[in-house]
Amino acid sequence: MLPVSSNHGWTSPLVALFTSTSAVCVTGLVVVDTGTYWSPFGQLVILLLMEVGGLGFVVGATALVLLGKGRLGFQEREIVRQTGTTLILGGQSSFVTRAVTLALVGQLAGAILLLIRFIPEFGLIRGIWMSIFHSVAAFTNGSFDLFGDYRSLAGYRSDPLVLLTIAMLIIAGGTSLLVAEDLWRHRSWRKFTLDTKIIVIGIPTLLILGTVFIMLIESKNPNTLGNRPLGEQLLNSFFHSSAARTAGFTTWNFGLSDDRTLFFVIGLMFIGSAPGSMAGGIKITTMAIILAVAWSNILGRRDTELMRRRVPQEQVGQALTVALLGVLLIVTIALTISLLERARFRDDFIKVLFEVTSAFGTVGLSTGITPELSAPSQILLIITMFVGRLGPVTLATSLSHRSQSKYRFPIESVRIG
Amino acid sequence: MLPVSSNHGWTSPLVALFTSTSAVCVTGLVVVDTGTYWSPFGQLVILLLMEVGGLGFVVGATALVLLGKGRLGFQEREIVRQTGTTLILGGQSSFVTRAVTLALVGQLAGAILLLIRFIPEFGLIRGIWMSIFHSVAAFTNGSFDLFGDYRSLAGYRSDPLVLLTIAMLIIAGGTSLLVAEDLWRHRSWRKFTLDTKIIVIGIPTLLILGTVFIMLIESKNPNTLGNRPLGEQLLNSFFHSSAARTAGFTTWNFGLSDDRTLFFVIGLMFIGSAPGSMAGGIKITTMAIILAVAWSNILGRRDTELMRRRVPQEQVGQALTVALLGVLLIVTIALTISLLERARFRDDFIKVLFEVTSAFGTVGLSTGITPELSAPSQILLIITMFVGRLGPVTLATSLSHRSQSKYRFPIESVRIG
Ligand SMILES: [K+]
Ligand SMILES: [K+]
Repeated sequence: MLPVSSNHGWTSPLVALFTSTSAVCVTGLVVVDTGTYWSPFGQLVILLLMEVGGLGFVVGATALVLLGKGRLGFQEREIVRQTGTTLILGGQSSFVTRAVTLALVGQLAGAILLLIRFIPEFGLIRGIWMSIFHSVAAFTNGSFDLFGDYRSLAGYRSDPLVLLTIAMLIIAGGTSLLVAEDLWRHRSWRKFTLDTKIIVIGIPTLLILGTVFIMLIESKNPNTLGNRPLGEQLLNSFFHSSAARTAGFTTWNFGLSDDRTLFFVIGLMFIGSAPGSMAGGIKITTMAIILAVAWSNILGRRDTELMRRRVPQEQVGQALTVALLGVLLIVTIALTISLLERARFRDDFIKVLFEVTSAFGTVGLSTGITPELSAPSQILLIITMFVGRLGPVTLATSLSHRSQSKYRFPIESVRIG
Repeated sequence: MLPVSSNHGWTSPLVALFTSTSAVCVTGLVVVDTGTYWSPFGQLVILLLMEVGGLGFVVGATALVLLGKGRLGFQEREIVRQTGTTLILGGQSSFVTRAVTLALVGQLAGAILLLIRFIPEFGLIRGIWMSIFHSVAAFTNGSFDLFGDYRSLAGYRSDPLVLLTIAMLIIAGGTSLLVAEDLWRHRSWRKFTLDTKIIVIGIPTLLILGTVFIMLIESKNPNTLGNRPLGEQLLNSFFHSSAARTAGFTTWNFGLSDDRTLFFVIGLMFIGSAPGSMAGGIKITTMAIILAVAWSNILGRRDTELMRRRVPQEQVGQALTVALLGVLLIVTIALTISLLERARFRDDFIKVLFEVTSAFGTVGLSTGITPELSAPSQILLIITMFVGRLGPVTLATSLSHRSQSKYRFPIESVRIG
């Protein structure tokens, strides 16, 4: 980022690199406070990076899936056709147009809702700017904010308009265009693709689970939701539940959250949201397949069954691979960072783990330690953001393109459990 | 346990229930200090419970596997026969004899080595008693100790004879008789069963990994290994590495360990050791299959391959199911306990998670919170010990006996990552 981007004249290359990576990967982790450190020009650059990074990823990831489909055999292509994924074949440029249009319309709608609050608060010009910036930051899941002092949305904890608008934008950004179009065109559960069904059930399930959990734990935490009115507790629990899987907006200093909330949110951040959306993580579909394997086994099914469909055996392996490599990456990076840092961060390994998972899942939630980490650790977070953004989808796609090996080893059972 | 078991005349039913469950499940978690609370008679009861529980489980788990094999189809039985598992068929009573004999010989050898240290220290009679008790506690992985004040082996941290003897007993107890017999009879890598190969490679790998990790982290911790001679650091790192997957012996107050060690040890406790051994956890073979799925996928293999063998698809599902249900159980119980307890335990969720994983893996390591937990929480730990002891093997066995479903759903892919 250019020198003119900062309010202080000079920006270290690391700060510039970290911030632009975080913006283009729509993560939202920061090493400086966006609202006070960067000049209006710098903030505009961040806005554009989030928009380009977010939309670029959605289009790129979908194209990768399309390319993948092209290499399938006749039978599988037939299946793809039957299940409706062809609605995007033969019109890739129009898909890009539709994706960009829908995103911009969504962001515009969000910005208009935010105007209601921000124009009275910040005046006309700055109010419009704040509305556009935060609508883009929410929809792309980029989750940078301009409120200053790392406060994020703490000033709006009792404001349903702002919090629900932001939450809806985040949820919309975490849902893919393919799902939206499938819903729009078929309007019948039976006709939806399995992919769509998983997302349509998975997102509300995770939202409810998260809301209940956060409410249960944090309503007893005096640093966060304790001693607050019930409505505010519920609103903020829902807000963090919708944010936690993919966006780093908060209404309290997240480092003051209960340990158990941090653990739980690490899980949510790891899962993320829909494939082909702005969200990161291993994706809800990947998690659904892993759960389906266990559930089908318990029911004694021969196949991995999910919503009256059979999941291909190869996909089971792919899902497990994506999840396992994700865990390994997070644990390795977190351990390395904790070894690089001074004792203070060592004693709170959960916070390091939280920060790394946030980077991997391109979430942006922070317990506040990222700005204080040493340069090597921040560089590791930059790498994690990139790998977290591009890793799962490219890994899953490349795994599914492998030619099969020509020989097979003899089969042999082992004892389990 | 009888009133005469205690040194204090009266024992609460919960203390008696917790202790006898812990002993019969060869876990080793305690709510009272074994050496000071229980009378010699009570200690003898504990010794017998560990011996009967440990040997009973080994024999029972192996019988369960044998029963399972009996129900396999011709082709699979042929495979079982070819891979050498038949060495135990047609002679189940002699298998029991061999298992008990080998266990008693091992414990006797261990006790004799311990005599060298314990007779000079405790005198003849008490020295013999201490040697037998701790040899049994180590081999069965029961890991109760009589040294008082929850000190475990802290007094022997610079004593290679005691620590290495105990470590070898723990490792032997965590290896199954089937593996030992396969090694003894075939003495050739090519002829070993896949099961044996996994254990023979898995145990040293985990021992080395654990030693390196604990050394790396705890050598900088002034409460544990910091400022100690290098040899002692290495000895104690190796000792805890061999103990951590299955036995609760320690040479320091484990609650003073670094957070990262607690995280790492939670992983080791969850994995455990060989199936059909004294050890708990999901077992090394289960973990190996899960890793093999990912690795085979990365290599682009059609099958799940492990050491030049193909793992049956059903076993992949079973392994994943055992692991996933284990994680779900641990997290649910830990969360419930943390909600039941006062604020002090709430703030340190990692310690609750550690204690519950220790109970699930029938390990017995403790950060010291178990004696201070409320009655409902201790009852949950009792349940966890039982489920952890019996759950994985019965789950895996029952999953593999399912009849296949008669209908199949249509196949459909989803997007992963
Ligand atoms: K984000
Ligand atoms: K144990």
